[in-house]
Amino acid sequence: MVIVMRSGATEQEIQEIVDLLHKTGLEAHVSRGEFRTVIGVIGDDELVLQVPFQAYPAVERVIPIMKPFKLASREFQDEPTVIRVGDVQLGGGTFVVIAGPCSVETEEQVVESARIAKRAGAKLFRGGAFKPRTSPYSFQGLGEEGLRLLARAREETGLPVVTEVLDVRDVDLVYRYADVLQVGARNMQNFLMLKELGKQDKPVLLKRGMSATVEEWLMAAEYILKEGNRKVVLCERGIKTFETGTRNTLDISSVPAVKNLSHLPVVVDPSHATGVSELVPPLCLAALAAGADGVMVEMHPRPREALCDGSQSLDPESFEAMMKEVTRLASYMGKV
Amino acid sequence: MVIVMRSGATEQEIQEIVDLLHKTGLEAHVSRGEFRTVIGVIGDDELVLQVPFQAYPAVERVIPIMKPFKLASREFQDEPTVIRVGDVQLGGGTFVVIAGPCSVETEEQVVESARIAKRAGAKLFRGGAFKPRTSPYSFQGLGEEGLRLLARAREETGLPVVTEVLDVRDVDLVYRYADVLQVGARNMQNFLMLKELGKQDKPVLLKRGMSATVEEWLMAAEYILKEGNRKVVLCERGIKTFETGTRNTLDISSVPAVKNLSHLPVVVDPSHATGVSELVPPLCLAALAAGADGVMVEMHPRPREALCDGSQSLDPESFEAMMKEVTRLASYMGKV
Amino acid sequence: MVIVMRSGATEQEIQEIVDLLHKTGLEAHVSRGEFRTVIGVIGDDELVLQVPFQAYPAVERVIPIMKPFKLASREFQDEPTVIRVGDVQLGGGTFVVIAGPCSVETEEQVVESARIAKRAGAKLFRGGAFKPRTSPYSFQGLGEEGLRLLARAREETGLPVVTEVLDVRDVDLVYRYADVLQVGARNMQNFLMLKELGKQDKPVLLKRGMSATVEEWLMAAEYILKEGNRKVVLCERGIKTFETGTRNTLDISSVPAVKNLSHLPVVVDPSHATGVSELVPPLCLAALAAGADGVMVEMHPRPREALCDGSQSLDPESFEAMMKEVTRLASYMGKV
Amino acid sequence: MVIVMRSGATEQEIQEIVDLLHKTGLEAHVSRGEFRTVIGVIGDDELVLQVPFQAYPAVERVIPIMKPFKLASREFQDEPTVIRVGDVQLGGGTFVVIAGPCSVETEEQVVESARIAKRAGAKLFRGGAFKPRTSPYSFQGLGEEGLRLLARAREETGLPVVTEVLDVRDVDLVYRYADVLQVGARNMQNFLMLKELGKQDKPVLLKRGMSATVEEWLMAAEYILKEGNRKVVLCERGIKTFETGTRNTLDISSVPAVKNLSHLPVVVDPSHATGVSELVPPLCLAALAAGADGVMVEMHPRPREALCDGSQSLDPESFEAMMKEVTRLASYMGKV
Repeated sequence: MVIVMRSGATEQEIQEIVDLLHKTGLEAHVSRGEFRTVIGVIGDDELVLQVPFQAYPAVERVIPIMKPFKLASREFQDEPTVIRVGDVQLGGGTFVVIAGPCSVETEEQVVESARIAKRAGAKLFRGGAFKPRTSPYSFQGLGEEGLRLLARAREETGLPVVTEVLDVRDVDLVYRYADVLQVGARNMQNFLMLKELGKQDKPVLLKRGMSATVEEWLMAAEYILKEGNRKVVLCERGIKTFETGTRNTLDISSVPAVKNLSHLPVVVDPSHATGVSELVPPLCLAALAAGADGVMVEMHPRPREALCDGSQSLDPESFEAMMKEVTRLASYMGKV
Repeated sequence: MVIVMRSGATEQEIQEIVDLLHKTGLEAHVSRGEFRTVIGVIGDDELVLQVPFQAYPAVERVIPIMKPFKLASREFQDEPTVIRVGDVQLGGGTFVVIAGPCSVETEEQVVESARIAKRAGAKLFRGGAFKPRTSPYSFQGLGEEGLRLLARAREETGLPVVTEVLDVRDVDLVYRYADVLQVGARNMQNFLMLKELGKQDKPVLLKRGMSATVEEWLMAAEYILKEGNRKVVLCERGIKTFETGTRNTLDISSVPAVKNLSHLPVVVDPSHATGVSELVPPLCLAALAAGADGVMVEMHPRPREALCDGSQSLDPESFEAMMKEVTRLASYMGKV
Repeated sequence: MVIVMRSGATEQEIQEIVDLLHKTGLEAHVSRGEFRTVIGVIGDDELVLQVPFQAYPAVERVIPIMKPFKLASREFQDEPTVIRVGDVQLGGGTFVVIAGPCSVETEEQVVESARIAKRAGAKLFRGGAFKPRTSPYSFQGLGEEGLRLLARAREETGLPVVTEVLDVRDVDLVYRYADVLQVGARNMQNFLMLKELGKQDKPVLLKRGMSATVEEWLMAAEYILKEGNRKVVLCERGIKTFETGTRNTLDISSVPAVKNLSHLPVVVDPSHATGVSELVPPLCLAALAAGADGVMVEMHPRPREALCDGSQSLDPESFEAMMKEVTRLASYMGKV
Repeated sequence: MVIVMRSGATEQEIQEIVDLLHKTGLEAHVSRGEFRTVIGVIGDDELVLQVPFQAYPAVERVIPIMKPFKLASREFQDEPTVIRVGDVQLGGGTFVVIAGPCSVETEEQVVESARIAKRAGAKLFRGGAFKPRTSPYSFQGLGEEGLRLLARAREETGLPVVTEVLDVRDVDLVYRYADVLQVGARNMQNFLMLKELGKQDKPVLLKRGMSATVEEWLMAAEYILKEGNRKVVLCERGIKTFETGTRNTLDISSVPAVKNLSHLPVVVDPSHATGVSELVPPLCLAALAAGADGVMVEMHPRPREALCDGSQSLDPESFEAMMKEVTRLASYMGKV
């Protein structure tokens, strides 16, 4: 940590900070410039975090030097984390397509979706039983019945199931049915839910919050890792910006940025990022080329009858066409 | 709702949409322009929401006309909602200062804070027992012990207590101690928690999410109102933008904008919006002048010892100076 | 400046940076922590700026310590800059209303607007002769004829004229007619125009760019100041965010933030910030309460006939009502 | 265009708008819903734009239906625009790498850069003679001398030159030396410069403004096209968001979105978008996979000596490695 003193800070004010550092068990390196004095702080980060330096009027700024996450960092673990879900390997050089409808509606719809997904080469099946909806008047999902239907789809196709835990009280319930527990963008900083998920032994797919920086996203992963669950998959799904042509803005740079900072696998969800089904296929290819470990896409056997997000769902034909391109490019890139 | 057909949509495609509308029980008004055909849809909104028009390739755009919130709207209720907490009136022409430390630390700290708040003219006391922290390594609050200390502070000063419910599982627990239940920015779209709070009979202070539009914020309020709890206070606390000089950007326009759209009271939290204690006093005055029903500010007896957000907390002296100015201006504006 | 070395940087890599600093004539203070080495750099900032430290792979981050602006800073000049335009004083404790139509349309319209402005107590008259329009198919302004009409309005009312220089080639032309030269948001980083304006002896009103941080805005002012023109008025006019209820988001915090950082006067333009005329009066009061030195508002004798931005223009009646409230509050606050 | 009347608008108010439409020569289709009346407007768009409907209090919202750009749209021209610069073809199925240093510094540096670019397979050479710099104290470019050095590099290598016009007064000067005239992000809405460039017969590379929507970007292109210059290449270079890990956020979705809306070629600049050289190679591949017609990257023979943006410039070795991957993938995708 570096503490920048205000211009005009007196010797006494500088000394007060140095004394405070020493008292806390930290080391202080003072650099006196013409206009500003800067204090380099050396020592245990957790000690550093506890001192509210900025409450001292003579302190202008406090600049953290260390990344605030540890277990999620490449410095803690350099080799990529590889997560196994049944036969599927996430991370470590594969490219996995997770596909399925936005929400579970009927047995027929969910089983048909899973079959289409499987046939086209998807490795995991997704579908929402609990739906976070902006409006209380919109369809909110089938709940446990939806989970049962997802399990049916798994029986039929063998595809492991990814589904969202919307409420911390449902962790156990969802655990019983799902293979991968998804944290939605709105829950990325639901820290108590993250802690619960950190106690589970199934993988967690952690969506990036709509207003979360990459660093905050990795801090959210840290909450899960810290509790002992090391199977975290990150999912970029677009951030809020002023652009209105797409629902959110897919931050493709976050893929190589995360790869530089962390060992965790990262997948991309272009369906939620854009809300426009036509943009999904080129963005899946872009995600693959940028180094992502997979994509998660919405597909519906009959988008015109979808109860949720029909306009961002691929129909079976477009989905299959996309899968061909993705599979070919992945194989060309040696990511299978 | 207005449906804009793609340029080049055929008569048959247009008819398909019209038929679909009729089948759903809706009325269709077709306007054929030179380049685009537009269909005005008349009928029950909830019916309209169920049809995924955008899944039809001939549909270019679907434009909602109605505000998606109802109970929160001025059209539903024109006179301002007035909420009573003990002797305090929120909404309907008063200006209420809610003050207190970011987090509850010790009995001495919390009781002293409450006394300072009371003496300077604050009407409600705030303090966090459960703290949402970006880092799992930061202080997370005292939990129930913190709630007990808040109750102690109320006993000592008579100030009603506003405190955050961080976890849906703690609604009952917090209810037992608090006078106003606060929903933090990160939980604004925790829809299941909103539903639980909608079943309580105590007021809810609903912070705006960091990436929520005013409309999404009012939709979150709608979740609470719909369950029967009409005592919702909105709290503007800054949105995420590219500006890095302040932690978030206080959206002051949201105050008159909310007043135009809704009957609910709205208060402003300049401490969290900016993260800079020096900016808090001028922004409290601005909030008052813009028509807010109150402000919520962080104050700590000794910011240098605060375990949380010391740099945005006012010290007692600055707090008292600010309260004088605010009280004078409120009284000049006839808002007491 | 502080240089943070990557974890794992070797002694040799650290020494390479230290040698580079010495060679450039700078002093280096090395703090070796457990995980990172940090180098504090002392010396002439302009020297520091010239060295591309980040091109060295062993360098993780370079953190500037000094504010990058000088002449605009409170450290350079602590007392507030006061700018005189005729009898009008901008900065130093007054509150000035600048009012007028978005664009100059006809002699009748502009003279009538100026009379309404004057009568209600505005001190400066604004109007656009050159209009930056997103669409090439929209009205682009009357050009020099518009400037002549503004001068007519000044003759009639005595109000000094503020008008925009849209093209660097028009600086001389606009100079001949205007009392204050306005730089629009889209030109805030038109550095060559800023330099030309820095050579003029008339005040410059510098609007904040829609995507400019406060620091970038002050850097733009620095371009003007550096050429010798010290009469710069800053104008906050909203920044681009995800919120769609208003055209832009008025960053009210920028007013006290600028006051902390700089001696330059700052005014607020709520008309362009929001694009909604009903929000203008409460936001003018908020700007005054937050410490602004004035506001700039759009007003049109007959908004329904405006060729530009009719929906954000106040009509004469609303304008006069607002002026009464603003004048009263300004007088209460001792700002006349 | 669709006009939404406020709830409670009277028959007379609705009739007033209908009459106004008829008077302007437009057709009105009125749909009366239970809560709102909606008026569909049919007729010449340019007429529609002239009427300030929103200045009527009974009007709640005006919703444009037509895209505001014409010449840039797929509806105007469906086949992709192909631009030839010497032997190079931009648009229509090729993938072109534009490479070179941020700024022209010395003859040796620029000629060496061009040779590296050429050898590795770049098709166009870029370099700045006029540099827009946030700080007036930073290096501002060599000016005309820089243009001469770029021409020297072209002589040596045969690579056509792309360089920025920073000032409208320099259009003729830059025209004499450059093959492609670049408009920087800060000038995207410098409408008078766009008009000048619209009168030239050389291609224009139009960077997206940091706060411009895709629609505003296409409107800027429209300014150039409208004056007669149909050779416009769009360049995505990142938008301003809250994410601080990269300088801006590369909006990769804008590539397929532009392809859907417009016939103009689009290239991607990951160097300016991120400011981090390590992110450039994966993002070049992503741009290619997403359907871009090319990329523009910064490369410097010795980044550690660069006078500008050294930290985002690739060194020759990384550049060559990237070019191999890009060339291979482009060839695999049939884009040569």
